[in-house]
Amino acid sequence: MWKERMERVREKKPLIHNITNYVTANACANILLACGASPIMADDPEEVEEITALCSGLNINIGTLSSRTIPSMLAAGKKANSLGSPVLLDPVGVGASGFRKETVERLLKEIHFTVIRGNVSEIKILAGSDVNLRGVDADGADRVTEENLSQAVALAKACAAEKKTIVAMTGTIDIITDGMTAYCIRNGHPSMGLVTGTGCQLSAMTTAYVAANPEAALEAAAAATGLMGLCGERAFRRMGNDFGNVTYGNYIIDEVCRVTPEELEQGIRYEVR
Amino acid sequence: MWKERMERVREKKPLIHNITNYVTANACANILLACGASPIMADDPEEVEEITALCSGLNINIGTLSSRTIPSMLAAGKKANSLGSPVLLDPVGVGASGFRKETVERLLKEIHFTVIRGNVSEIKILAGSDVNLRGVDADGADRVTEENLSQAVALAKACAAEKKTIVAMTGTIDIITDGMTAYCIRNGHPSMGLVTGTGCQLSAMTTAYVAANPEAALEAAAAATGLMGLCGERAFRRMGNDFGNVTYGNYIIDEVCRVTPEELEQGIRYEVR
Amino acid sequence: MWKERMERVREKKPLIHNITNYVTANACANILLACGASPIMADDPEEVEEITALCSGLNINIGTLSSRTIPSMLAAGKKANSLGSPVLLDPVGVGASGFRKETVERLLKEIHFTVIRGNVSEIKILAGSDVNLRGVDADGADRVTEENLSQAVALAKACAAEKKTIVAMTGTIDIITDGMTAYCIRNGHPSMGLVTGTGCQLSAMTTAYVAANPEAALEAAAAATGLMGLCGERAFRRMGNDFGNVTYGNYIIDEVCRVTPEELEQGIRYEVR
Repeated sequence: MWKERMERVREKKPLIHNITNYVTANACANILLACGASPIMADDPEEVEEITALCSGLNINIGTLSSRTIPSMLAAGKKANSLGSPVLLDPVGVGASGFRKETVERLLKEIHFTVIRGNVSEIKILAGSDVNLRGVDADGADRVTEENLSQAVALAKACAAEKKTIVAMTGTIDIITDGMTAYCIRNGHPSMGLVTGTGCQLSAMTTAYVAANPEAALEAAAAATGLMGLCGERAFRRMGNDFGNVTYGNYIIDEVCRVTPEELEQGIRYEVR
Repeated sequence: MWKERMERVREKKPLIHNITNYVTANACANILLACGASPIMADDPEEVEEITALCSGLNINIGTLSSRTIPSMLAAGKKANSLGSPVLLDPVGVGASGFRKETVERLLKEIHFTVIRGNVSEIKILAGSDVNLRGVDADGADRVTEENLSQAVALAKACAAEKKTIVAMTGTIDIITDGMTAYCIRNGHPSMGLVTGTGCQLSAMTTAYVAANPEAALEAAAAATGLMGLCGERAFRRMGNDFGNVTYGNYIIDEVCRVTPEELEQGIRYEVR
Repeated sequence: MWKERMERVREKKPLIHNITNYVTANACANILLACGASPIMADDPEEVEEITALCSGLNINIGTLSSRTIPSMLAAGKKANSLGSPVLLDPVGVGASGFRKETVERLLKEIHFTVIRGNVSEIKILAGSDVNLRGVDADGADRVTEENLSQAVALAKACAAEKKTIVAMTGTIDIITDGMTAYCIRNGHPSMGLVTGTGCQLSAMTTAYVAANPEAALEAAAAATGLMGLCGERAFRRMGNDFGNVTYGNYIIDEVCRVTPEELEQGIRYEVR
């Protein structure tokens, strides 16, 4: 089930258009190459529609949101919608400012997103819940645990149903749902929180997975999420006693090159709710 | 003395707002995570005040200065001043253009900076001295040596006193002073000059250290500087015979994760002048 | 022949002005430091002429082209021309949008470029040929092979002659030509295609090589290209069985620090056509 999703990405090598932040753009490009896809970053209003038309999927990330690129996000998103290409939204730090929140509201109103991927705090804000805010990282109090998993699944499902999208709410336990079915994934390692941009990278890779698996978008988004977590585990083991967050981050992407479809199939620990 | 500064950062996990360049933003984010802080990069005038208000410290870096973000720097800096949050200025390559020089003068006029961190050439320009200019890197002729250390300390102290700030002038010997007391630190390794962005990273980390140690800002800035140098030494040893500048740069940040408060306490080689 | 080119760069330590994209800027800065040069990234119209005047070479890269920086590219390029400094163009993804194509046409009309470095698809577009387009990466159908090498050399020579420049068309076999002489270089490793930004890095390093070797620009561009390929081979061997694309990319730049002039002299596999 999971391995077919990976095989499709490696076969189709989807070209992904990223309108993203300048902090993690390099890592996003490298994880797209690692998973078998190809990246293009382009954010000028003069060219985004043409670039989107050339690509198989569009990844919109507001990590360093700029007034200059909001028209680009809107134009590219509408173009992708008109072509039937998948569009992903990563609402980085949506709770950190009115500017981010209003922009996300406008994007959600004018564009249909295939997937919204965010941490628990970000998804809670989209769902209209109260949150404890801590910049671009999820607040500890928002952590999904075995104890509150049912409520978290209900929240993610409600958000997906209301926005008619797939919600990938990632954290200690990842929840990927289209509003009906929810995959709860228990891969990953706590040290991934020490690496900047693992969320952005997952968003880029999820766009590639969904682009290459249009008939199975929910499973594709779950496969990408599980793959990221599995690579976080494998990279941590590879570090041995020499842990450092930058080398760890590099090894996570390295592992995305190396995992075989069979290892992914065996390695994802999930349940369906 | 030094270890308490580190412990405060790891306990308080300050969220740091960075208005910085796109060359080293990723490394700055990772070093903030490595030292126990959290990063947020945001530079649009529409949101910077709100972001600053959410954070414990503000790091302003002109490495890829843009007309678009100068109003952001001014607005964020004033907001931080009004809230009593620390603000750091990294005047990258201030001597390279009139645009940089005028912008720095305006920033210094309208914002009170808690710390100014730069290389010797940059601090000399702020102090109004003649300098040999070499882009964003300090000129060799400006190097602080045992022979000219007294003059360098006097220059840094005068600059700090005049600007009512802490000056962290880093190089072969680092000088951190509030105009009265100067810590001269002899950590570091010459190969750090082969890694892009170690200065920017130190500025980001210094902001976190000062934010977490408001009652001891001078010692906090010195602790961050000593930590960076110590990590440069440790990372160099870890490379063994396989030196390469990118891996070395990664290892430096890795070491920031690994150094214990006791190792910092023992490892900083300093004198007070 | 090749080693003198490397020695000049290490002796002269040219300062290189880069107007480039935010995806690979960090790696470009690090490869410039690795090869013995120094980087400065600056793209605001307010300062680019001054920065160019301070530097020994200018590298223009359209990877994340923005309307904001086109005037900067034009002003800096004209300044470099007026000073007799070398200027390199990297027409990243020129075929991906009309915006990129028109910008490149304007740059070529208003600036004299010392070197144009691109992949086969990009150079074909500049030469007016039909191409198969695939974002910022060369299309497989455009690959230079032993079978079509003669046509590829003819194409590169014609493009160089028409634009009165050196063309560095890189891929499986690299072709560097001034329209008369063509160096065909057979270094490199297929896995370099899995690392984002190796082309951008080569462009930055080529600018440094040409800046330090003004009397031998063609050989300098070929030396930089051969060095990049050689480092790709050496880095691949260093990976052993632990291949991963991010670590591989880091090791490539690491090797640029380590290769000796003699190793370069021996290691470049080339023929002249």
